[in-house]
This record gives sequence, C-alpha cells and structure tokens, in this order.
Amino acid sequence: MTATVHPIGAVRAASLDPIVQLVAADLNHVNAVILDRMQSEVALIPELAGHLIAGGGKRMRPMLTLACARLLDYQGSRHHKLAAAVEFIHTATLLHDDVVDGSGLRRGRRTANIIWGNPASVLVGDFLFSRSFELMVEDGSLKVLKILSRASSVIAEGEVDQLTAQRRIETGEDHYLEIIAAKTAALFAAACRIAAVVAEREEAVEEALDAYGRNLGVAFQLVDDAIDYASDAKTMGKGVGDDFRDGKVTLPVILAYARGTGEEREFWREAIAGRRAGDEDLAHAIRLIERHDAISDTLERARHYGRRAIDALGPFPAGRARSALVEAVEFAIARAY
Amino acid sequence: MTATVHPIGAVRAASLDPIVQLVAADLNHVNAVILDRMQSEVALIPELAGHLIAGGGKRMRPMLTLACARLLDYQGSRHHKLAAAVEFIHTATLLHDDVVDGSGLRRGRRTANIIWGNPASVLVGDFLFSRSFELMVEDGSLKVLKILSRASSVIAEGEVDQLTAQRRIETGEDHYLEIIAAKTAALFAAACRIAAVVAEREEAVEEALDAYGRNLGVAFQLVDDAIDYASDAKTMGKGVGDDFRDGKVTLPVILAYARGTGEEREFWREAIAGRRAGDEDLAHAIRLIERHDAISDTLERARHYGRRAIDALGPFPAGRARSALVEAVEFAIARAY
Repeated sequence: MTATVHPIGAVRAASLDPIVQLVAADLNHVNAVILDRMQSEVALIPELAGHLIAGGGKRMRPMLTLACARLLDYQGSRHHKLAAAVEFIHTATLLHDDVVDGSGLRRGRRTANIIWGNPASVLVGDFLFSRSFELMVEDGSLKVLKILSRASSVIAEGEVDQLTAQRRIETGEDHYLEIIAAKTAALFAAACRIAAVVAEREEAVEEALDAYGRNLGVAFQLVDDAIDYASDAKTMGKGVGDDFRDGKVTLPVILAYARGTGEEREFWREAIAGRRAGDEDLAHAIRLIERHDAISDTLERARHYGRRAIDALGPFPAGRARSALVEAVEFAIARAY
Repeated sequence: MTATVHPIGAVRAASLDPIVQLVAADLNHVNAVILDRMQSEVALIPELAGHLIAGGGKRMRPMLTLACARLLDYQGSRHHKLAAAVEFIHTATLLHDDVVDGSGLRRGRRTANIIWGNPASVLVGDFLFSRSFELMVEDGSLKVLKILSRASSVIAEGEVDQLTAQRRIETGEDHYLEIIAAKTAALFAAACRIAAVVAEREEAVEEALDAYGRNLGVAFQLVDDAIDYASDAKTMGKGVGDDFRDGKVTLPVILAYARGTGEEREFWREAIAGRRAGDEDLAHAIRLIERHDAISDTLERARHYGRRAIDALGPFPAGRARSALVEAVEFAIARAY
C-alpha cells in the first residue's frame, strides 16, 4: 500500500481545502458564468435558482471538472462554461428530486418547492437543464454534448428506477448499486471525463477520469445513504431518517434486512412499505442497522469504491492536482466520521 | 386576397389530411425512432411515455419539420431523428405541464400524473428531454442543437412566466402574447426552422420557416385558449373551463376584463383569484365573454397570426407541400368552429 495512492484509512483529517484551493481562481470564473446564465427576464427564475445555487452547495461536480483539467495541465478556459453546465444539470436534478421526494429541507435550508411550490421548481429545473445545453452548444464540442446528454438520460433513468424500487424491500445490493451508479455517479463521471475532452487527450485518459469520477460518485452516495441513518439534522443539513420515511431501500437497509432474523425482516417489510414510519420505528431501524454492522459495512463498501477512484488516478503524474483529487475522495468518505 | 395565400375565412372545411398525407411515409420513420428511443431497461419509462406518445397526439410539431423539409425538396433522412427529438421535447413539456397544472385529463384520457403520480411524470419528462438531446447529438448539427436548446430554454421561461401571471387579472394582452410566443410558438418555430438547416438552405429560408412556425404557434394557442371557454369536454379532450379554474389569464379573459363594467371587472378579479370558481361562476364568465365578443375577437387575433404564417410561405414555390402547410394553418383555426 503506497502512501500516496491508497491512503484511505486515516480519513478524519481529510478536507476539501486542497481541491478548493487548487481550483479557486477557475471556480470564480465558473461562478460568474453560473450567475450570468441563470438570469432571465422572468424574475422568478433567478430568484428560485439563486436560492439553491447560492445555498451552500460545495460545487463538488464543477470542482471535479476544474481539478481534472488541472491534472491534465489544460491551459484554456473552455472548462469554465462546461463546469457551469455540469452544475446546472446538477441543480436541475436537485430541484426535481425535492419535488419527487416532497422534501422540505436541503443543506439545512427550506427547499425551493416549499417556498415557491412544486410547479415553479419543476419549471425552473427545466430552464436550468435547457440552459446547460445552451452552454455546451456555445462551447461547440459534440463530444462533450454526447457525454453530458447521455449522462442526463442515465440520471433520469436512475431516478425512475429508484422510484420504482421505492417501498420494495426486495431490492438487492446489485440493483441498488445500479441505481446509484446512474442517479449519482454518472454525473460525477461525466464531469471528470469532459476535462479530458477539452484538454484533447486520448480515449484512455477520458476513461481513467471517467472511472475516477464514477467510483467517487458511488462512494459519495453510499456515504450519504449511511449518514441518513447515522447522523443528526445539523450534520446532514437534512432530517435524519428521510430515506426511511420515504421507503427508500438503501444499502444500510439492504444489509440489515439480508442479515436479519425473520422477525426483523418482517419489521423491515412493514417499515419500507410505509406502515411503520414513526420516530420509534426509526429508532428501532437504527438499532437493527447497528446490530448487523450495516453502517460500518456500507462505509466499507464506500471505501472500496474510494480506493478504485484513487487507483484510477495512478497513471497521472504525482503533484498538487492529483493529491487534491485523492483527498477529495478521502473527504467524501470522511464525512461519515 | 389571393386564393392560395390568404384563404382564411372559409375555414370549416380545413383539414390536416393534406399534411398528414404529404408526410405519411416520413412520419412512419419518425414513429419508429420515437418508439425505439423511448425504450429503457427501466420498464416504467416506456410504459408512461407510451401512454402519452401513443395517446392520440396529432404529431403536429414533427409533421411541421417533415412538411417544411418537403417544401425545400430535402431528399435525405436526417429530419426523421430530429422530428422525433422535437416530439420528445413536446412530450416532456406536456408531462411537466400536467404536473404543474394538476391536470386530470388530456385528449380525453387520464393524464400520466393521475395514473403514475407526479414524481414519475417529472422524471420521465426529464428522461425524454435528455433523450431528445441525445438524438440531436447523433445527428451532429451544432446549429440544430443551438436552435432546439434555445427553444427549450424559452419554453421553460414562458411556462414560468405564465405561472407568475396566473391568478393575476392585471396581465395585459402584450404580456400574454409574450407568454404564448415562448411557451407554445417557440417550439413550432424551431420545428420548422431545423428543416432549413438539414436542407442546408440560407439564413433567409430559416427565418421564413421560423416565422411560419412562430405565427402558426401563436394562432394555435389563441384558438386553444378560445376553445377552453367555448367548447365541451368531448370536442376538446379536456374539461371546458380548465383555464378558468386554474386562474389562467388568457386572451378571452383579458378582452372581457378590459371591456367590462366595474361590476364585471370585480367578478373577474374574484374569479381569477380563485374565489369564484364554481360551475355557475364559469357559466357567468362565459356569458361575459360572449357579451363582449371576446371569443370571436380572440379568433380574429388568431386569424391575424394565421395570415402572417401563410404569408411567410409566400417566397416558396407553390405546390403540394406549400398547400398542405397553408391548410395546416387553416385547420389550426378551424378547430374553433
């Protein structure tokens, strides 16, 4: 185990600071594009979009585009517009997700659908999504357009798949991994991959960055799903137990169900079907999850994907960019600790 | 008034048959693309999309792309994929509109949001929207991508604008025309314009077809808005008075309000605000609209845009394609009679 490439373990100290500092100047440009291109004469659009865009998001996906471009020593500025396009796609999916889930809180703030209603959230999401394609068209790379239009389809498929799996305790780990690969990891992968396209690097480089982003995305989502059963609202910026109440079958539940007694399985069936969704039921669910090490094993799975993400960076030269990308993986996992 | 170019007047006999027959063979190809590209391993996607796509839509917008290509004597097949992309954008907006409006019926059938719920409608709309961009990317024309991504943004802006104007009786005719130009006419215009792009014709041809589609789209929406106060559920495929109950300020209301007495205006304020939305209120609204000729004058406005659409075809050679496009305008208006 080399110290640089497999460092997951001492995760507590991991931070986003290195990647934030690496891309800070570029991110200012991206933020300027975002601010400029979310404008509209229809006042509700910048108002609603601004709530979410200015609302404390980490800009994880655009930072990945920027950091990957830095890793490839890209000297141009095309990635600013494209990173903004990636963030618009992400923001559009968040707006629609909150409608789909009937959410009330995100990152500790009231969600747009609560403040402005579901119709406005749906339509402003559509606007940002369209705007993201306008940005890509301005850049003019059909390859980038292909990557991001494909990612968008896959995200939507993953979201529908998750909706179908909702309240179905039979959802297995493999199906669950397919869902999160689509709904979350596809955009992480695309955000990284397009850096190779703008830097005009060969297919193998595209694939390596795609693999980095994809595995990071899976790890990221696994950790989110673990936190939903392990954290409090303050840490998470949303209520603990949201997935439980929504009947979402995530890996902590899948593991606890698979390892449970007959009686426990009966509880999970009832709970995921929505017939046991009170605070005491949630407390019982968390006890069962702890009893079967389902959180720590979910995080172990996350570390597995994290290691794969870091290994995908192996071919790239050591240096500030690679270290920052490695630490971003460590940070994604450290959030759970 | 020349018989070929300004024939609106004897509208009753107008039919979509000429355009349907003109493009029938091409439309089969488009339908095959639509059927093929709405598929997904996630079964709910083709199920829900199929409900709407197979559900009796006239394929107005893809037919316009096909007929305009025929007008330009285009011999290739690129327009099949692009017409499918246009229909996917349209279908996505219908799915989202029904969620936004809380609709229950469209074309006489239960809407997808009623059958499968709002979340599925939002997400399948997103999928079709992404798919439409994938189709455009496969075609590979950045010009087409620019036209349709711009149209998509404009549609979303128009929808948000309409949402903001909803329940506001102060909405004036000019503002209303801006809204329908965006939410409806932009896609008609783009559907026509891209035919000139695939046929590799000069900018002036693009602009003429854009003008045809845009004016037709405005006429089409004006007639729809008139029918909502003049028709019954059977003719319309949706309940009469939907706009009234939703507090949508359409031209029949704008004209009746502008021409009304103080007492009548008070009624409109109350009704559009949602405080008088019963069946008797609707009957009263229809009486006021009739008293002020607001339906016939809305249709006169529609004929104005219809004539502009037809005049935009003036530069093109007379023949089967132009006649079919002219009659499509007449049909759009004849629906009200």
